[in-house]
Amino acid sequence: MKEKVLIFGHKNPDTDSICSSIVHEILDKKNGWDTKAVRLGNINKETQYVLNYLGIEAPELIEKVEEGQEVLLVDHNEFNQSVEGIEKAKILGVTDHHRIANFETSDPLYYTAKPYGCTATILFEEFKTLGHKIEKTEAVLMASAIISDTLLLKSPTTTEHDKKALEELGQLAGINIEEYGLEMLKAGTDLDDFSAEELVNLDAKNLEKDGTKFVIAQVNTVSIEDVLKRQSELEKAMKDEITKKDLSLFVLAITDILNSNSEIIALGNKAEVVEKSFNTKLENNRAFLEGVVSRKKQLLPNIDKNI
Amino acid sequence: MKEKVLIFGHKNPDTDSICSSIVHEILDKKNGWDTKAVRLGNINKETQYVLNYLGIEAPELIEKVEEGQEVLLVDHNEFNQSVEGIEKAKILGVTDHHRIANFETSDPLYYTAKPYGCTATILFEEFKTLGHKIEKTEAVLMASAIISDTLLLKSPTTTEHDKKALEELGQLAGINIEEYGLEMLKAGTDLDDFSAEELVNLDAKNLEKDGTKFVIAQVNTVSIEDVLKRQSELEKAMKDEITKKDLSLFVLAITDILNSNSEIIALGNKAEVVEKSFNTKLENNRAFLEGVVSRKKQLLPNIDKNI
Repeated sequence: MKEKVLIFGHKNPDTDSICSSIVHEILDKKNGWDTKAVRLGNINKETQYVLNYLGIEAPELIEKVEEGQEVLLVDHNEFNQSVEGIEKAKILGVTDHHRIANFETSDPLYYTAKPYGCTATILFEEFKTLGHKIEKTEAVLMASAIISDTLLLKSPTTTEHDKKALEELGQLAGINIEEYGLEMLKAGTDLDDFSAEELVNLDAKNLEKDGTKFVIAQVNTVSIEDVLKRQSELEKAMKDEITKKDLSLFVLAITDILNSNSEIIALGNKAEVVEKSFNTKLENNRAFLEGVVSRKKQLLPNIDKNI
Repeated sequence: MKEKVLIFGHKNPDTDSICSSIVHEILDKKNGWDTKAVRLGNINKETQYVLNYLGIEAPELIEKVEEGQEVLLVDHNEFNQSVEGIEKAKILGVTDHHRIANFETSDPLYYTAKPYGCTATILFEEFKTLGHKIEKTEAVLMASAIISDTLLLKSPTTTEHDKKALEELGQLAGINIEEYGLEMLKAGTDLDDFSAEELVNLDAKNLEKDGTKFVIAQVNTVSIEDVLKRQSELEKAMKDEITKKDLSLFVLAITDILNSNSEIIALGNKAEVVEKSFNTKLENNRAFLEGVVSRKKQLLPNIDKNI
């Protein structure tokens, strides 16, 4: 029997990666295609809040794909953020809202990217274009993804498309977006039972430029101070990653989702790149970045330019 | 004054690259965006037939783009097929029907790819989705692009989407697709006043795999025999390109558009790759490939696998 087409988001899946995979499968079924959402890593606490709210199961975990496996990517395209074996998979389509890099196919494919705050907003527009009814389940999933990626529309990545989609999805889901969203985001900031190693890998993006490898990781919190109490063990875990992956830079952004600021910890032989990138000085390996909450729009482009 | 956003297809523009650029500009205007179609090379005779039929001017020729210039790509994405300076341009969007490779951005963008026979078919569907009326000019331009890329729907790249689009566009344009299409294709096969050097560069795609550079060029004809009379001067021109560009392989496909076959001439230190790719023997540097008309679907994937 031929394997089903698999849909997945990036490694260290966030709420958009998980929810958009499930929604993509729902949309495919409406179009008569029997695809299957899977995931490349553990469900974080924020996403678990969403799944619990809906009473649905997480997609199945996969470790790698076989040569020739047909796949659909959501919420990422860079191979170093994707599944093991992606180079030899058959990529039929991509739905994403990131830059395109470290990505290559041997055949033509479907690729839908828009510079929106969230993959789910693109899927929302697909539902509208195709004239499919949006049921409560997919409305909650898409709304949750948008709330997560845009930090309740406060991130600079937020576009008018995301605002419009979230407003309509809130109505379709029958939820109060502010209340539901704050509960969901807070659920994601409960970091107590994570080890330092888990924390620095929770939402870590592996990046590469001209052969220079670096990582930008991010944790959301309602108290930066609380997280910084663990600075020394976090630094140890970051150093371990630097050695293991031969990194030139590891940036951990600790993002205050209530006040929209970040404190960063930067280690590695290119740590000074962040000083240049944000016109700041590292003290005790740290810097406070006022108004910085977005990896994609603020952290990555500045660091990528200077590394 | 800020430069307009520029729209262009690939180097050595074919009918799809030129027509889709113009149609993209028309579509943008309907959406309230003031963009400008340009081109990266000479208008070929087939495309000139279309422009003459409509009585419209060719887009302006450009040689390169400045750093930061905002651009929209149609009918290509690989940087080695694009304009000089593309690496430092700001790519806002891509509309394409090819594989994705040798392409990278630092920011999120609009990217619409579909595995169709022609870029214009994707634009046709955009008109439908957005509910814009298709006037005669854009109907003829899109129909011509589809006829050109699919060789009147006979190429294996042809999809149901292309067939449906061409049928509707023929009605909207008020033309007999078969008659108009054959005249247009024949106009493109008048190769007499091209030098051998021009012929091998007319529709040549620069390709690269793991550092190995190769070119697949194609000329359409109604008589392969006529073109082969010039074999020795064509080979000399191909050898010059091999030296100039440090190529491992130069394949020239001479495609009989009436009978849907190709004769290829292959030169370079990896010429034997085509023997393996098509289970054939080169004699006098040539091989006849029955039923082969598509670079994208037949020539490139096979050669790419074996090079």
